[in-house]
Amino acid sequence: MSVENLLSEGIKATPPSFVRAILKAASDPGVISFAGGLPNPVSFPQEELLASMERVVQTYGSNVFQYSVTAGLPELRQYIADRYNRSFGLDLSLDNIIITTGSQQALDLIGKVLLDKGDGIIVERPTYLAAIQAFSMRQPVFYPVELTEEGMDPEKLAEALRNPVKFVYAIPDYQNPTGLTYSAGNRERIYEILKDRGVVLIEDDPYGELRFDGERLPYIGAGKLPDSILLGTFSKTVTPGMRIGFIISKNRELIKHLSVAKEASDLHTNIFAQYLIWDYLKNNDLDTHIAKIKALYRKQARAMMDAMKKYFPPTVKYTKPHGGMFLWVTLPESVSAMSLFPKALEKKVAFVPGDPFYADVKNVNTMRLNYTNADCETIEEGIRRLGDCIRQLL
Amino acid sequence: MSVENLLSEGIKATPPSFVRAILKAASDPGVISFAGGLPNPVSFPQEELLASMERVVQTYGSNVFQYSVTAGLPELRQYIADRYNRSFGLDLSLDNIIITTGSQQALDLIGKVLLDKGDGIIVERPTYLAAIQAFSMRQPVFYPVELTEEGMDPEKLAEALRNPVKFVYAIPDYQNPTGLTYSAGNRERIYEILKDRGVVLIEDDPYGELRFDGERLPYIGAGKLPDSILLGTFSKTVTPGMRIGFIISKNRELIKHLSVAKEASDLHTNIFAQYLIWDYLKNNDLDTHIAKIKALYRKQARAMMDAMKKYFPPTVKYTKPHGGMFLWVTLPESVSAMSLFPKALEKKVAFVPGDPFYADVKNVNTMRLNYTNADCETIEEGIRRLGDCIRQLL
Repeated sequence: MSVENLLSEGIKATPPSFVRAILKAASDPGVISFAGGLPNPVSFPQEELLASMERVVQTYGSNVFQYSVTAGLPELRQYIADRYNRSFGLDLSLDNIIITTGSQQALDLIGKVLLDKGDGIIVERPTYLAAIQAFSMRQPVFYPVELTEEGMDPEKLAEALRNPVKFVYAIPDYQNPTGLTYSAGNRERIYEILKDRGVVLIEDDPYGELRFDGERLPYIGAGKLPDSILLGTFSKTVTPGMRIGFIISKNRELIKHLSVAKEASDLHTNIFAQYLIWDYLKNNDLDTHIAKIKALYRKQARAMMDAMKKYFPPTVKYTKPHGGMFLWVTLPESVSAMSLFPKALEKKVAFVPGDPFYADVKNVNTMRLNYTNADCETIEEGIRRLGDCIRQLL
Repeated sequence: MSVENLLSEGIKATPPSFVRAILKAASDPGVISFAGGLPNPVSFPQEELLASMERVVQTYGSNVFQYSVTAGLPELRQYIADRYNRSFGLDLSLDNIIITTGSQQALDLIGKVLLDKGDGIIVERPTYLAAIQAFSMRQPVFYPVELTEEGMDPEKLAEALRNPVKFVYAIPDYQNPTGLTYSAGNRERIYEILKDRGVVLIEDDPYGELRFDGERLPYIGAGKLPDSILLGTFSKTVTPGMRIGFIISKNRELIKHLSVAKEASDLHTNIFAQYLIWDYLKNNDLDTHIAKIKALYRKQARAMMDAMKKYFPPTVKYTKPHGGMFLWVTLPESVSAMSLFPKALEKKVAFVPGDPFYADVKNVNTMRLNYTNADCETIEEGIRRLGDCIRQLL
């Protein structure tokens, strides 16, 4: 039997992830892949994690294998509260924090708690494709706001807010896909526009710890807008395979409803993994570890930018990230990144065409490149090949 | 700001779990709790799991810490396919299987893929409360079908199917909350009613491996209804804390859409935990391990039934489970289990009143007791106290 007529409108509205579809092609041996969003394995402190595994099993015994509470391990939530309080002068307690099964689950829970079919939401243009995917399940109306070198365009944001919207979703630091960072002035303006507006600001911050140039800027809403949500993760700093992300909010009502949604979604996140990350953080200096990751990513980002300067036609533009894992290439207007993709794959180099990062347009001339998962020589060779392919399309 | 006016209809329709709410009260030292659904820690092979942790880190290195594929570790999916093929004569390949973040996530994904607001679904009456919770998020119309000693009442099922429904959700073995098992004849009749009916049968089977009396019966739909879904988990046989469940279906369309829903929900399940469970299964004999759990649960179940015979008024009825973790008590009609609950808690004994297991009624005279997480003496003492409390209400 075909189940076509039994499918929900929600699933029919949800695009499969283009990235995950092409990762298979990109993972062929010999292909230089800038397509994924994989952290460099150097960011996995394997030996220390193995020591923590042994320690938590020996210390906490059956507790690390048993069912546990929905909001997550109190000790880990307290660690997160303390770290954000120290780094950003916030005033968090563990009750402001829910551990999620990766940051992706946070997006799913937010959709469940805030969105019904037809509700308006504001996203950056372009934005994180898996956020489009998670929110699409609830069939909202997307109001994308242009992303400039300074961040979300404040005037266009104010304009978009004339529509009835539930929330604004933004990635202010080393944005995925563009690598752009909101300026201090832009953050101020967005805060002024959003305060007393009756919408929730969601700041998604998976990369903030990975600043390798310039100064870390304050959050837009966290600590100031009482009904804002801040998302974080240990995926980029410790290990993504353990799927440990977190939601931070000072709004108790939001936390309460997000907890019910979490309970209905997977009861709780893997409790062993929570003990593991907590024990690792307690017994190691996270900042020393992150410093190594940042030094590596800085080198890799520069290798990619240097190679682009050398091998790309001058009409090709690209962002110059100060942190994170991605940069964003704008091809001449006549060149569709989706058409470039198969040609590049023939030359054994892969990237993500811009299309899936837009909620509203197709066949764009932009593309995302990841620089964290190849060494500098491989990066240069990949960019050289990509430059050749682009020239053939001009 | 209050976010009340921003909340989705879905979250407002979703009840917080009563069980998780009372677990706090039930976890006070001195309280004998029959409330939870916790496996006995004897079911966690701690030493073997620790050995597997060390082995998978040493063998697979960064792969156990990196991002991974949405459907789950192929080797683990193959193990599951092989085990079900061997045990039930099914014809599964790994492509018929998706690893989920616990069975709870499977319920969430099924809701996403099949349900829009107002869609009809058939559930047992009573049924698993967290299934009610997961499905409620999609705002379906529940058509509960009476559960008898033989299973779902076939005539009432046929009647309920006159409504437009998307799926039938059933727990045929050692049902939660009742501990009842569908008879062979009943399974046949339900199969006959459902075949060619254009609805999906969901067989949720978390306890099937825990049969301690009688014979294991064949599934209703798995292997016969091509558009049916079978759910399984390692939570009751190895460890719930790792959150490893799975979806089995021969319907490729369903698998494809469930995968997209999974991707949008948490990208993938903790990959370390998948390697861990797979390595454990490869290097240990699961059946020998399960035999130990079953011997224990049989003893505990009998201790509870013996104590009930001794201490409960004869007007109180209860099921006699052949496996699983729960039994179901029916009080005299005049006694509300919800009124009994605070009185029992005063006497330091906890259970779950029947209410949250019904999609349609309140203030029922039924209640769920778990027997797997207390030793036999504690069980007897708890039942003695509970008997006293019941007598006071008669």
